[in-house]
Amino acid sequence: MKAVRLHHYGEQPRLEDVPEPSISQPLDVIVEVGGAGLCETDLQVIQGQWGARTDPVLPLTLGHENAGWVREVGTAVENVQAGDPVIVHPLTTCGFCRPCRAGDEAHCERAAFTGVDFDGGMAELLLTSARSLVKLRPLLQPAEVATLADDGLAAYHTVRAALPLLYPGTCAVVLGAGRLGRVGLQCLLALSPAEVVVVDLSDRDLGVAAGLGAHHTVRAGRGQVQAVRDLTSGAGADVVLDFAERPGAEADRIAMVRRAGSYFVVGSGANMDIPAVDVIASEINVVGKFSGSHGDLADLVTLAAQHQIKLETSTYDLDSVAEVISDLANGRLRSWGVLTPTPG
Amino acid sequence: MKAVRLHHYGEQPRLEDVPEPSISQPLDVIVEVGGAGLCETDLQVIQGQWGARTDPVLPLTLGHENAGWVREVGTAVENVQAGDPVIVHPLTTCGFCRPCRAGDEAHCERAAFTGVDFDGGMAELLLTSARSLVKLRPLLQPAEVATLADDGLAAYHTVRAALPLLYPGTCAVVLGAGRLGRVGLQCLLALSPAEVVVVDLSDRDLGVAAGLGAHHTVRAGRGQVQAVRDLTSGAGADVVLDFAERPGAEADRIAMVRRAGSYFVVGSGANMDIPAVDVIASEINVVGKFSGSHGDLADLVTLAAQHQIKLETSTYDLDSVAEVISDLANGRLRSWGVLTPTPG
Amino acid sequence: MKAVRLHHYGEQPRLEDVPEPSISQPLDVIVEVGGAGLCETDLQVIQGQWGARTDPVLPLTLGHENAGWVREVGTAVENVQAGDPVIVHPLTTCGFCRPCRAGDEAHCERAAFTGVDFDGGMAELLLTSARSLVKLRPLLQPAEVATLADDGLAAYHTVRAALPLLYPGTCAVVLGAGRLGRVGLQCLLALSPAEVVVVDLSDRDLGVAAGLGAHHTVRAGRGQVQAVRDLTSGAGADVVLDFAERPGAEADRIAMVRRAGSYFVVGSGANMDIPAVDVIASEINVVGKFSGSHGDLADLVTLAAQHQIKLETSTYDLDSVAEVISDLANGRLRSWGVLTPTPG
Amino acid sequence: MKAVRLHHYGEQPRLEDVPEPSISQPLDVIVEVGGAGLCETDLQVIQGQWGARTDPVLPLTLGHENAGWVREVGTAVENVQAGDPVIVHPLTTCGFCRPCRAGDEAHCERAAFTGVDFDGGMAELLLTSARSLVKLRPLLQPAEVATLADDGLAAYHTVRAALPLLYPGTCAVVLGAGRLGRVGLQCLLALSPAEVVVVDLSDRDLGVAAGLGAHHTVRAGRGQVQAVRDLTSGAGADVVLDFAERPGAEADRIAMVRRAGSYFVVGSGANMDIPAVDVIASEINVVGKFSGSHGDLADLVTLAAQHQIKLETSTYDLDSVAEVISDLANGRLRSWGVLTPTPG
Repeated sequence: MKAVRLHHYGEQPRLEDVPEPSISQPLDVIVEVGGAGLCETDLQVIQGQWGARTDPVLPLTLGHENAGWVREVGTAVENVQAGDPVIVHPLTTCGFCRPCRAGDEAHCERAAFTGVDFDGGMAELLLTSARSLVKLRPLLQPAEVATLADDGLAAYHTVRAALPLLYPGTCAVVLGAGRLGRVGLQCLLALSPAEVVVVDLSDRDLGVAAGLGAHHTVRAGRGQVQAVRDLTSGAGADVVLDFAERPGAEADRIAMVRRAGSYFVVGSGANMDIPAVDVIASEINVVGKFSGSHGDLADLVTLAAQHQIKLETSTYDLDSVAEVISDLANGRLRSWGVLTPTPG
Repeated sequence: MKAVRLHHYGEQPRLEDVPEPSISQPLDVIVEVGGAGLCETDLQVIQGQWGARTDPVLPLTLGHENAGWVREVGTAVENVQAGDPVIVHPLTTCGFCRPCRAGDEAHCERAAFTGVDFDGGMAELLLTSARSLVKLRPLLQPAEVATLADDGLAAYHTVRAALPLLYPGTCAVVLGAGRLGRVGLQCLLALSPAEVVVVDLSDRDLGVAAGLGAHHTVRAGRGQVQAVRDLTSGAGADVVLDFAERPGAEADRIAMVRRAGSYFVVGSGANMDIPAVDVIASEINVVGKFSGSHGDLADLVTLAAQHQIKLETSTYDLDSVAEVISDLANGRLRSWGVLTPTPG
Repeated sequence: MKAVRLHHYGEQPRLEDVPEPSISQPLDVIVEVGGAGLCETDLQVIQGQWGARTDPVLPLTLGHENAGWVREVGTAVENVQAGDPVIVHPLTTCGFCRPCRAGDEAHCERAAFTGVDFDGGMAELLLTSARSLVKLRPLLQPAEVATLADDGLAAYHTVRAALPLLYPGTCAVVLGAGRLGRVGLQCLLALSPAEVVVVDLSDRDLGVAAGLGAHHTVRAGRGQVQAVRDLTSGAGADVVLDFAERPGAEADRIAMVRRAGSYFVVGSGANMDIPAVDVIASEINVVGKFSGSHGDLADLVTLAAQHQIKLETSTYDLDSVAEVISDLANGRLRSWGVLTPTPG
Repeated sequence: MKAVRLHHYGEQPRLEDVPEPSISQPLDVIVEVGGAGLCETDLQVIQGQWGARTDPVLPLTLGHENAGWVREVGTAVENVQAGDPVIVHPLTTCGFCRPCRAGDEAHCERAAFTGVDFDGGMAELLLTSARSLVKLRPLLQPAEVATLADDGLAAYHTVRAALPLLYPGTCAVVLGAGRLGRVGLQCLLALSPAEVVVVDLSDRDLGVAAGLGAHHTVRAGRGQVQAVRDLTSGAGADVVLDFAERPGAEADRIAMVRRAGSYFVVGSGANMDIPAVDVIASEINVVGKFSGSHGDLADLVTLAAQHQIKLETSTYDLDSVAEVISDLANGRLRSWGVLTPTPG
């Protein structure tokens, strides 16, 4: 079958023929990939930034945002059967450790990351675990929703954590109107009564945010903290959700939070410092978020089926992978890019 | 092997020879039973009270409070290996449904109850699932801790749920100083700063409670509500944990709770009615508790290994089963009774 | 000034002239009453059902759902000033006891209930405490929102408590499409992603519920439990909020809740019994709710100002009080009835 | 009366005669000061580090950790009366803003800090608010417990926030065995089943910690992270509570936390940076803590009355203030220093 393979860190991955995967464990499942999304994490994997942490054996098939149709299942699989449309949680988990059993699978002691620690979904077939699958409602096409499996999941997980803090009359600031921020915005609008302020450098992206229903938009820059304070009677926002893709202006981000408010840092981990003195004096909570649980992914797919989450997706043949990666790296990919090894 | 088998509801179970179980599923585990506890639930199973609900095929091997040593494991088992001392959670769970994945395995959609829905541990060998096992620390003997798997588990689970309500200066009432109540009392003393009042009909059992560290004991009966109010400046208890084994005096039980306090009903479900008017006017929370999670059982075993939970256990040969059941049914068994098919 | 006064339990209250109240304590506030709602609680007060509990001195001015304009304030009042439009929380609270300081004012140890324990708002002027006032946004008229102070508050408080249980894909059942149920329904739609099923005996009221956005309506009666199960893949509802005004079919109400789900009992406390055995075996939470906090009332007013809560209100002169009480008692008052001592 | 007054930032405060305070507001209370503790905050106030933030009018009477006996009360005071022994919460609060009413008085929108924003307790008499007082149980002497009002309160508040994370078998690390750390350690031992590891540079202070019951002590320095990992099977601590008085080794502090664990930063706010990348990748929660609520102070006094919190206190005449401040500034004050304007 065809697969997008990384042979050496720092080199571009290549489309090549590889043997098809086969079932060996009782919970193994083989999925025909209908959509495999790309995001900045893929660029980091190519550069070797994740290799240092997880040390996978190269060559590696990329692709951690996957959806498709079940082709074949192991002997102990009962939750899906051949033909089912599914979305694939990026983590495989053991189901036995304390975090798994306490409802916190994202911190499974034996978690492995699809397309980073083992072969991912930029290929005709993906070998994964039955534990990682969420069935799709009939109306949802795998290629349309594949990107919910990573970007979307992190955003939903973060909004979910912020919800208890957001009662009528409160204000949430979304930093960044890129892909993560747009899902975060839509989740906030679907799930909370808060007023939502979106902050971004790009007028175009702020326009998209306004179109999705943001109550206010603020141009990032010198006056941003004052603008947020003006929108909140001087107090600052109850919650700031930081989906910004680039570091910078960290003190401003904290300064937008009201006393005893909460600051959620999401995403791939810009090399940013948080001044502890501000955190203590104002009793601000700083909460790091990385990914969501299997239940979070199920919820998000439910919201998408209810048309509460909309994604602007561009689909590409597997052959176009080099071009898409280049567009992503150069900032030319404004919507979500999804490879479609098996068109629906 | 020898096993205690129930052939017809309403008849006494018989000790007889049956074939040894064998591994057929990837997560199957066979345990040499070191201790199989008895409790009122066994009497109800014999009478057929559970048969109506779960309709198991008879004959059935009894025994839902089990501990022992792993003898053999299925192909996918990685959390235990032959020789490990283990305690067996009474439920087998799927690990895939929403409750399992949300940390609420006790409500697994496919849960089955050992010794009730399928063959239990009053036998030389028990066939269970790797998911149901908690490894024991070396110092704990299976026969000593087997009863933690059911009575103890329900009590710990209940105390755990009450903890956020119990800050310094609060008062918790434990109704019943029998087996459940004694574990509940010890868990409260180990985990909370609350003053604990134990209420029971038996002076002997109140003496045991005092010996375990209860701050106050109250003789059940006419003056019990006033006694609790006197101990709480007239307000009533912040939390009442009802471990009483028999119905009666329900209005009194609610009357011991302060306004906006919480009433936890535990155990096998006496046929008791709660007056809704009292619950609403005083905004009392009524919370039903039945069993605990795998994590709860692991915590409880940790407390036992730290000598914070002590159990008075009497052990019996498998041959003595008829006698123990008779003692239990006649109220002559004051400590925990444990059969020891395989002595340690 | 004119006031609606109850002289003897069981007799109709009379409109009569009484002296105007005056400020005597530092936090006293006198409010010109713009709207004073009526509800079943007033009928109970007239019948003497509350007198037994709180023993107020008669004659008593009725009226516990009040809004208006501040006329005069005591020496220590800083949160409102003369002329401010306000809604009046039905409880006066001390601000010093542990419940008050823990954010649970509804259980203030010295709480008093306006129009029940001391003179209420069916009069030209109301003497209350600065602590009980929430300022209204300019667009809201006191007479329009007065009923939020009691019926609305209980409904919001209950929905708020249920929110953490309601994630995308869950189902909430609202029992009763009367006044309480309609506010509850609108709060659920504004604050949660749950599917909402409304159950009522009246086709007309179910039509109103559907018009407000209920996802499904079910005619109360023999098939109601099955209907709820059919709408929830057989499992039952995650949450049942019982706003029904009359007792009956209690076992059915519990039977609509899924295993480990939650049942919220709201309202004035029908004399209903809850079978404990069902609660335990299914680990259902039963939560009694009576009223909400000052913050709850502020939230609810915010939702009303955002047009997320709509109330069908009929206003009446103070002179019409006998007629409105009679309509309410005879079930002829389908919308909220509000007296307007001082028209806006 | 005599009072310790600060006339200019950067100069030592002077003991001098000032007029006695008098009651002017309904909730005013005058307290005869039995004990006024000193801590690093006083040194910061003297240096002017707090002046920039709160800009009080000088001269100012110092003293924010106060206890004593009520001498006189305002017209609306009902919670205390003349002669009552009391401890004084360092904040005065309004009781009306959303944080106050939500049980979060420490973030009162109009909070003022005794001895920092207005005259404090290093004087014979202190003018405060009835809202700031907690009555002492008869056995507790004001001078003995005065320091609970600030150092102790911050430590208790932090431990309380960490409790839901600490179940049997978990590990909490206390950074710093100074005054804050010792109260934190004792609160953890009284309220949680966690194993507690104390880390400090001083062998003497580690000895004190061991004497108070710490399960393990670790000498701060190069091997500290490894030592914590060795004590936690390589995983890191579930919770790290940072009571360290000096900045340094920040990366190490985070490195002691396990994946998805929590890091509580307490105290006066060292100028420390937290690397966001570590927080995100490991989903660690960083929580800033500064002070506690009125309820927290009541709890802490309850623990002290139960002998669960012990404080090493040295008492001094008001005349010795210069000497005590000098000892504190030079690190010669190892126990808590308390001035006793009115000996008990």
